[in-house]
Amino acid sequence: MASPVALIQGASRGLGLEFCKHVLKNKSLASVIATCRNPDGAAELRGLAEQHRSRVTILKLDVNREEDVRGAAERVKENFGRVDLLVNAAAMLHPSGKGETSLRDVSAQGIITTLTTNTVGPLIMAKYFTPLLQKGGGAFGQQPAEKAKQHSGIIVNITAKVGSIGDNGLGGWYSYRMSKAALNMATRNLSIELGRSRPKVVCVSLHPGTVNTDLSRPYHKNVPNDKLFSAEHSVNCLMAIINSLSIEKTGKAYNWDGAELPW
Amino acid sequence: MASPVALIQGASRGLGLEFCKHVLKNKSLASVIATCRNPDGAAELRGLAEQHRSRVTILKLDVNREEDVRGAAERVKENFGRVDLLVNAAAMLHPSGKGETSLRDVSAQGIITTLTTNTVGPLIMAKYFTPLLQKGGGAFGQQPAEKAKQHSGIIVNITAKVGSIGDNGLGGWYSYRMSKAALNMATRNLSIELGRSRPKVVCVSLHPGTVNTDLSRPYHKNVPNDKLFSAEHSVNCLMAIINSLSIEKTGKAYNWDGAELPW
Ligand SMILES: NC(=O)c1ccc[n+]([C@@H]2O[C@H](COP(=O)([O-])OP(=O)(O)OC[C@H]3O[C@@H](n4cnc5c(N)ncnc54)[C@H](OP(=O)(O)O)[C@@H]3O)[C@@H](O)[C@H]2O)c1
Ligand SMILES: NC(=O)c1ccc[n+]([C@@H]2O[C@H](COP(=O)([O-])OP(=O)(O)OC[C@H]3O[C@@H](n4cnc5c(N)ncnc54)[C@H](OP(=O)(O)O)[C@@H]3O)[C@@H](O)[C@H]2O)c1
Repeated sequence: MASPVALIQGASRGLGLEFCKHVLKNKSLASVIATCRNPDGAAELRGLAEQHRSRVTILKLDVNREEDVRGAAERVKENFGRVDLLVNAAAMLHPSGKGETSLRDVSAQGIITTLTTNTVGPLIMAKYFTPLLQKGGGAFGQQPAEKAKQHSGIIVNITAKVGSIGDNGLGGWYSYRMSKAALNMATRNLSIELGRSRPKVVCVSLHPGTVNTDLSRPYHKNVPNDKLFSAEHSVNCLMAIINSLSIEKTGKAYNWDGAELPW
Repeated sequence: MASPVALIQGASRGLGLEFCKHVLKNKSLASVIATCRNPDGAAELRGLAEQHRSRVTILKLDVNREEDVRGAAERVKENFGRVDLLVNAAAMLHPSGKGETSLRDVSAQGIITTLTTNTVGPLIMAKYFTPLLQKGGGAFGQQPAEKAKQHSGIIVNITAKVGSIGDNGLGGWYSYRMSKAALNMATRNLSIELGRSRPKVVCVSLHPGTVNTDLSRPYHKNVPNDKLFSAEHSVNCLMAIINSLSIEKTGKAYNWDGAELPW
């Protein structure tokens, strides 16, 4: 079998960077393609690539630039010919760094910027990388015995529990919540289209918990210590879910503990 | 009691135009503020305004231009001082006029344009018109006896059943589905924020059925005749729901027949 290829989009910091570390540590034969918009500013990621020279490829990719995504897909096609796992990690709470507490804070430009990065970005990634995921070896997840039900690749969109419409009891964070609800619809649509194709590609949304990263930093003081996960713990949980995925589980949103989340 | 004021956003054609006609016909004391991006091109709406000179005000408003929305809210504040009902009707399937049948048709620009009109537009309307809705006289919907539960205004976001993530079994129409899922999140968030305020504003998403308008025209041949509603029939159904709304029913998505839709 060909060696596994994992592509982590948004790998400069936080959960994306941690996914790279996790795969390098736990999937000893896997190659990691780490994309970020500014490799020069991603010192820790570059250090990781130095350490694992033969296994890590860093590609410059701003999810807001469709031409970057297309270019990266061409590079990956030439150099690897396939992808087994695509993780869409990049996102923002809001361009200001803080979610809107009320309607007064809402601006058209703020919502559009948030939607463009958090929602459009992952879908454009799916568009250009689907042909490569369809050439994957199915190295992540569980393969059922029946050949017709096997998958060649997996797309993971990192969502957020606050993106669940049904679970929304508090309000606020308009842009971020809307971006993740729309992302969940993208997940659902992708799961349908790519579940029909042969070979199949699995697509799910995963909520990482509340994690100690830059994104959540403004809110850490409100989170009880045992509810604030380290990125390492969160990614351990998410990779356990990813390792259990099969086409039967496609098209859903899962919490870090594996429970299904309502839309 | 002050006479009712209904503002219909996206009133040049289709369901928006029909909402104007319905209110003029069925709420004999109501004023209608009809907004559209190009009044010069909206001959039927201008004809309606000629017929009901004292009751119809046409305002130029492109939902994609926050300054238009702000300007219209200032005009309405000066001339009416309040709004009882805001209907956000404007939307597109996709800039091409047809929903994407597969991932291949998806483009960043197509999604962003669709999200901007269908999702950001209604939320920006809500932002600028909420102060006026909070000054409304509660002329639409049902008022419970208990004063603290009464509402001053209603926001209706016209959604689509295909915007339900849970109901999505077919896939396709990426941009449109995502825009309506995100709009439903906006509805939910608005219902929470404006349900806490005093006076309260009700906010719901309504699905009009499949309606004989320009938007659905490319697909009419696939729709059985008795499933393709006239705009008049659809608006009759939707106004029946609106007339039954109270704060108890806020924050949900309803089908044209009053049934609750899943998120
Ligand atoms: N942390 C939490 O509590 C939490 C909770 C729920 C969900 N999540 C989700 O988890 C995922 C990862 O978030 P995190 O906590 O790891 O956040 P983070 O530490 O703030 O990292 C955000 C990442 O997104 C990247 N990014 C932003 N805009 C980009 C663009 N246009 N193109 C490419 N990359 C871009 C950043 O790159 P630069 O370094 O170049 O800025 C950075 O790598 C996100 O989807 C987030 O919504 C997080
Ligand atoms: N028809 C259906 O079967 C169906 C089904 C489900 C949901 N819906 C929803 O029902 C609502 C009304 O749709 P419809 O069927 O009446 O469609 P329609 O006949 O195509 O009318 C669309 C309206 O949106 C306006 N519009 C588009 N972009 C705009 C912008 N940037 N600023 C202001 N106005 C803009 C158009 O104005 P111009 O005249 O200037 O172009 C027109 O008035 C939409 O929200 C749609 O998603 C319709």
